[in-house]
Amino acid sequence: MKLPAKMTLQQIAHVIGGRVEGPAELLKDLTLSSVAVSPLQATEDDLALVFDEKLVSQLGDCKAKALVVTPKAKTERPRIVVERPMLAVQKMLSAVAPKRHCPPPGVHPSAVVDATAQLGEGVAIGPLVVIGPGCKIGAKTVIHPGTIIGAKVEIGENCSIGAGCLIADVIKIGNRVILQQGAVLGSDGFGYTTERESNLERRLRGDRDLKDESNPHLKIPHIGTVIIEDDVEIGSCTTIDRSTMGATTIGRGSKIDNLVMIAHNCRIGEEVLIIGTTAVGGSCTIEDRAIVSGGVIILDHIRIGKDAILEGMAGVIRNVPAGEVQVGIPAVERREFIEQLVRLKKLKSTYADVKKLNERVDKLEALLSEKTLEKV
Amino acid sequence: MKLPAKMTLQQIAHVIGGRVEGPAELLKDLTLSSVAVSPLQATEDDLALVFDEKLVSQLGDCKAKALVVTPKAKTERPRIVVERPMLAVQKMLSAVAPKRHCPPPGVHPSAVVDATAQLGEGVAIGPLVVIGPGCKIGAKTVIHPGTIIGAKVEIGENCSIGAGCLIADVIKIGNRVILQQGAVLGSDGFGYTTERESNLERRLRGDRDLKDESNPHLKIPHIGTVIIEDDVEIGSCTTIDRSTMGATTIGRGSKIDNLVMIAHNCRIGEEVLIIGTTAVGGSCTIEDRAIVSGGVIILDHIRIGKDAILEGMAGVIRNVPAGEVQVGIPAVERREFIEQLVRLKKLKSTYADVKKLNERVDKLEALLSEKTLEKV
Amino acid sequence: MKLPAKMTLQQIAHVIGGRVEGPAELLKDLTLSSVAVSPLQATEDDLALVFDEKLVSQLGDCKAKALVVTPKAKTERPRIVVERPMLAVQKMLSAVAPKRHCPPPGVHPSAVVDATAQLGEGVAIGPLVVIGPGCKIGAKTVIHPGTIIGAKVEIGENCSIGAGCLIADVIKIGNRVILQQGAVLGSDGFGYTTERESNLERRLRGDRDLKDESNPHLKIPHIGTVIIEDDVEIGSCTTIDRSTMGATTIGRGSKIDNLVMIAHNCRIGEEVLIIGTTAVGGSCTIEDRAIVSGGVIILDHIRIGKDAILEGMAGVIRNVPAGEVQVGIPAVERREFIEQLVRLKKLKSTYADVKKLNERVDKLEALLSEKTLEKV
Repeated sequence: MKLPAKMTLQQIAHVIGGRVEGPAELLKDLTLSSVAVSPLQATEDDLALVFDEKLVSQLGDCKAKALVVTPKAKTERPRIVVERPMLAVQKMLSAVAPKRHCPPPGVHPSAVVDATAQLGEGVAIGPLVVIGPGCKIGAKTVIHPGTIIGAKVEIGENCSIGAGCLIADVIKIGNRVILQQGAVLGSDGFGYTTERESNLERRLRGDRDLKDESNPHLKIPHIGTVIIEDDVEIGSCTTIDRSTMGATTIGRGSKIDNLVMIAHNCRIGEEVLIIGTTAVGGSCTIEDRAIVSGGVIILDHIRIGKDAILEGMAGVIRNVPAGEVQVGIPAVERREFIEQLVRLKKLKSTYADVKKLNERVDKLEALLSEKTLEKV
Repeated sequence: MKLPAKMTLQQIAHVIGGRVEGPAELLKDLTLSSVAVSPLQATEDDLALVFDEKLVSQLGDCKAKALVVTPKAKTERPRIVVERPMLAVQKMLSAVAPKRHCPPPGVHPSAVVDATAQLGEGVAIGPLVVIGPGCKIGAKTVIHPGTIIGAKVEIGENCSIGAGCLIADVIKIGNRVILQQGAVLGSDGFGYTTERESNLERRLRGDRDLKDESNPHLKIPHIGTVIIEDDVEIGSCTTIDRSTMGATTIGRGSKIDNLVMIAHNCRIGEEVLIIGTTAVGGSCTIEDRAIVSGGVIILDHIRIGKDAILEGMAGVIRNVPAGEVQVGIPAVERREFIEQLVRLKKLKSTYADVKKLNERVDKLEALLSEKTLEKV
Repeated sequence: MKLPAKMTLQQIAHVIGGRVEGPAELLKDLTLSSVAVSPLQATEDDLALVFDEKLVSQLGDCKAKALVVTPKAKTERPRIVVERPMLAVQKMLSAVAPKRHCPPPGVHPSAVVDATAQLGEGVAIGPLVVIGPGCKIGAKTVIHPGTIIGAKVEIGENCSIGAGCLIADVIKIGNRVILQQGAVLGSDGFGYTTERESNLERRLRGDRDLKDESNPHLKIPHIGTVIIEDDVEIGSCTTIDRSTMGATTIGRGSKIDNLVMIAHNCRIGEEVLIIGTTAVGGSCTIEDRAIVSGGVIILDHIRIGKDAILEGMAGVIRNVPAGEVQVGIPAVERREFIEQLVRLKKLKSTYADVKKLNERVDKLEALLSEKTLEKV
């Protein structure tokens, strides 16, 4: 990874937030032009990241001129010591990342922007974008090619709306929001009712007699909206449905991965993480900083408390208390889940025990009845 | 929620399908201009919906001029009594919903419509739509911006094809069909074969000796199609693959949520509901009015009977009889699943029982051998 | 299914790879013009495929002039004998499949192709395609309508890039690659860190004291890329994220179904199959010819060995050895999973056994204490 220019260790330490250590004579005049993520593949010109503790003992084989290490690493070589390796990587990559291709400010001639749309200063609208009537796009926001935006959509400043996003009418997006290509906002929620009592309702009141006749699903209009607050990021092919009334809301700083479904009327708190292919049912509340892993399914009307964690493939059918870690189908507290697994493993030997117990009791019974007989 | 105009209680009752009750002197001259969904937040000008039984006891605090209630609610206030609250909401919302932004009838100049395409009366083709050769679009159908339609696609009347939908060649869509933005119809099914026996085939005939050599997957052409019948609705990023031969079919009035996968050769019956992130394997049949919840995975070649219900995250590997409710992985009848859960919960105490039994039998054996010894 | 022209049995056998058998007098002058997949519905002019062994006994009712059978079928009728029925179908369909609608070679006037893009001979760029600066498109590759391609993307020869695909910057695609409509390549991976220790980190080091304060997620730039090797096929709404550094790689000849998520930094081997709605976590390795069924979730940093099979809905949290078949949540070896199921089924009768054992031991204890009493 090339650095944008030759940098001293001190300059790099300033960028990634660490302190320089090592023999003064070696630090003097030391400049670097590239970074190696894999220490054992580093060349003499590299600054090597050494965050894997297993690698520290092999540093003798590392040719790098300087290292980035955590305080645990015992070494005398020129180095930057950082407390938070991933943060150092984040800052390093932010510094060296080449600028992505971006439509230039202005409106590409092939875009179809309604005359009533208001574009802020420095807004960039890429080729083949559609922007409907009454939209407002904040300053310096970039709309990548092929994105379709309906009517009366408000987008804040400094947003990056990826290619091919689909944003329906009357949606509000905050500042510094990132939509990855192909994110979908504001489709109608999945809500229907029937003119006559449905077989499902019949079942729910205990009637097992189902009618074999048509009972069409009537669409419930969704007159609500979607609100995406500041600093949210939303992944590709993730769909966030509009609410029946009011707004489906994604709170400030929350990050949602690809192929996630957020159903109508959900309220997602702040700094929440939701990983790929998860589905959040209708009218759920997910409170601040909760983490929902991949492949999770959350039933309608569930509340996930602050800082709760749902591990991968959890099937959530009950509210989750704040701070609790849950997993399993249906989801239970993590320790309980592990105890369940351990008990399941033990089943085999328990069955053997029970079989043996049966034999032993058979024997005892036989013995006692003999004794009883003897007595007679 | 503003009503489109001042209405009498009788007029509203007519719209939502209920009967007016209450003191004649209060009903006289009573007109309303807005609807409150939350009774305790209603103002004096509102008609308040009171469907939550818990709220009925707090009606003293509700300022609304009139109520919509179910027959269970005991109140003397001016009211509309409805038997089916959700139906009333559906009718109310249908009456008040503001018209969505829609491309006007005609073809937007930026759309690319093949000269051989036939457009019915009042058809609206939005900006940047592509319509291939030989397509037929029925009267009053709206194609929202950015949708790409291949060759020889037939779409019926009064359909709403959302923005950014992808509809491949030779597909037939009925009347009044709604595609939410980003729905995908007619991709090739996932079908391959190999020139030589594959490791999978080898395994299936009991040969555990796997060959470590290339055996390329050969694509099976999919010359079939997709048929979407009348009144179907399909969600965003839902993919319905074309069949190998014949047609993948979605029956009249069925509703499919977002991010659902319907594989090649499926036959979905009428008025079926399929909730988000579910995958229906190849060549499955889902009969009329079945309900498939979210996150369900159905193996290939499975038949789900009429009115069956699959609960969330069911993993279906056997046919499901008509009317049966199944859940679990692998899916079993609901009662059986719950009994399983109860038994699992009991494991802990059973292990304690078995341990104790072992000790008791140890003691008995010791005692008996003593006795036997005494005898000697 | 119409054949493109009248063909002799010998000609067809040549196409589908089989040998002609049957009475010479019937074979002479025998020509066919259509193929019936359903033998009992075949007419006298048809060649009927008879691969279902149950149908062989009913051949008397099949009117077809000639048959395609496996060596197991005992019949004297004019026939083509094939060893691999699905391969015969594949070859037959490949021969008769009507050519799909395709943009003609050249660039559609509505496409927006950057002046610096290099297009190979015979490249076809459909309507409303966007191709960014510095792209290279190989000879005879077709880009279907509405696809958006960023900057510096290289696509090989003879590829078919479906409608509405989204391909971000700096991605490399091999030869003969097929993207189904709506495939998404090169979105940023889901990677964040925090300035201060997060509640998640606190938990991981055993600190249960969570802080109720904001700790924003900082985006880790993704400067890596995606490499799609030759002969890969990728389904609709499948997302393959770019790597943090290096490349997310899909190996030669691998096939990925719809709605699959491949997270950043994954390395998928050659001839791998991944079925719909599966999610592969970050930095996973899936080795050659592994088969990952539908609805599977694989944790980050997992390695799936060569020829391993993950059955539907497996939840994979440990590396899977080469050749092993796993299923379950968490995934275990198939036999172990089935034994678990059998044991679970047995729980009911075991509980009865334990109850009975308790009663029997109660009785024995009572009896023995009586005897002891008698002694006294």
